[in-house]
Amino acid sequence: MRWLKFTAAGDTSWGLVEGDTVTTVNGDPFGEWNKTSKTHALKDVKIELPLIPRTFYCVGLNYLKHLKEAADKAGTVPNVPDRPEIGYRAQNALIAHDENVVIPAGATEKIHYEGELVVVIGKKARHLTEANAMDCVFGYTIGNDVSERSWQKADRGLWRAKNADTFKPMGPWIETDVDLDRMETAIRVNGKETGRFRTNEMIFGIVPFLVELSKYFTLSPGDVIWMGTDGASPDLKDGDVVEIDITGIGILRNRFVKEKV
Amino acid sequence: MRWLKFTAAGDTSWGLVEGDTVTTVNGDPFGEWNKTSKTHALKDVKIELPLIPRTFYCVGLNYLKHLKEAADKAGTVPNVPDRPEIGYRAQNALIAHDENVVIPAGATEKIHYEGELVVVIGKKARHLTEANAMDCVFGYTIGNDVSERSWQKADRGLWRAKNADTFKPMGPWIETDVDLDRMETAIRVNGKETGRFRTNEMIFGIVPFLVELSKYFTLSPGDVIWMGTDGASPDLKDGDVVEIDITGIGILRNRFVKEKV
Repeated sequence: MRWLKFTAAGDTSWGLVEGDTVTTVNGDPFGEWNKTSKTHALKDVKIELPLIPRTFYCVGLNYLKHLKEAADKAGTVPNVPDRPEIGYRAQNALIAHDENVVIPAGATEKIHYEGELVVVIGKKARHLTEANAMDCVFGYTIGNDVSERSWQKADRGLWRAKNADTFKPMGPWIETDVDLDRMETAIRVNGKETGRFRTNEMIFGIVPFLVELSKYFTLSPGDVIWMGTDGASPDLKDGDVVEIDITGIGILRNRFVKEKV
Repeated sequence: MRWLKFTAAGDTSWGLVEGDTVTTVNGDPFGEWNKTSKTHALKDVKIELPLIPRTFYCVGLNYLKHLKEAADKAGTVPNVPDRPEIGYRAQNALIAHDENVVIPAGATEKIHYEGELVVVIGKKARHLTEANAMDCVFGYTIGNDVSERSWQKADRGLWRAKNADTFKPMGPWIETDVDLDRMETAIRVNGKETGRFRTNEMIFGIVPFLVELSKYFTLSPGDVIWMGTDGASPDLKDGDVVEIDITGIGILRNRFVKEKV
């Protein structure tokens, strides 16, 4: 199933996407819901952010190529994680598919995308095992972990480098049925492919992360875990359109525009 | 005004505390509300977590003594911040006044408190100035930034060291009227004072943080900013009761108990 949060004729609700049609749902996918008879053409609705997570988890380094490229640039040896560890991103930065990423006035030209698979939690879960970990996963969406690399280098933490308003596009919808091992993530800038990797070739996969996190954390419906990215991005500039295309989910597309001051 | 989220007779709502009495309020302090005629004795109600912030901001290093003690322990020179930078904590870790901090089964004895002033945002705000920054502050509460120092040292980030379930007690209520310059933070373990500092003697105060954060972030009603702590904590053990007492706000009290496995 493909769950879309959308607005049509001033009403925001959940819907189910089949082909080019959205069927309005009463309720929400994490609780009680039922399909109505109301439908819209997908092209006629405003796609909204699927949700604001209670806790917004994000894996920093989870693909070998990304790690090596970052180390090469810094002139260091890649420090490959020996166990799954998690970071966080900030809710203020989330925007929907087709909304603009605003490059802050004081930013440098080092604005990069990171195309990521996003795991959406569907059930309260603690102390998961390898055998039952995937039961708490509701579905998958796409994230763009936009980063300002000069700030990332200069600051003590990732606050403005990764969490400036609009730096976390997520969407366009949540897909519940995917084949992780057949997925590829392709990234395009202004229609031209600039990166491609096998989505599930992670240093640590979804199951090890769910098991490790749930040793310490209660996962809640609507929490998200961004799973990291591979490869590197060119510098993005005012007007660039970035598409992140993951097999079986869809395309997350956002235009980058410079803040007007 | 002193805003309390509480449960009585199975109903959870906001209330206003005057002396030892809570008056139930319809609505909530960030939107429309009105006082009802229903009152309870404060001692008869269950005190709830005031709110779950959309974005959970937390200042890492903001008091000189804390910085120096941490540097001394690490055998390094204190690296005093030259500008306000922010970190994050995780919503899963929040608990209310009088709820138990559960020390995870795998934790070492290096469990520490950090008593912090918490700023609660009341209005949507971006690009604040020194002159208008304080207008977006709704009030103040108290936080205990519980930390497992061995994990803090061993891990790449602060995930389980500071965000394990129950590691973020916050409360007991939100006080809107305080005199920042007359506040002291006192911390007691099992009734014995173990730390005391002037709450507002920060390296960077509330105004510089609000101005800097709002250059990049839209602050939202219910967001919180934990302002950092001074001094150091003894190692806490199973059964210890920690009280954080801030002048004009109140006392946040939590018992620490070892996880049963």
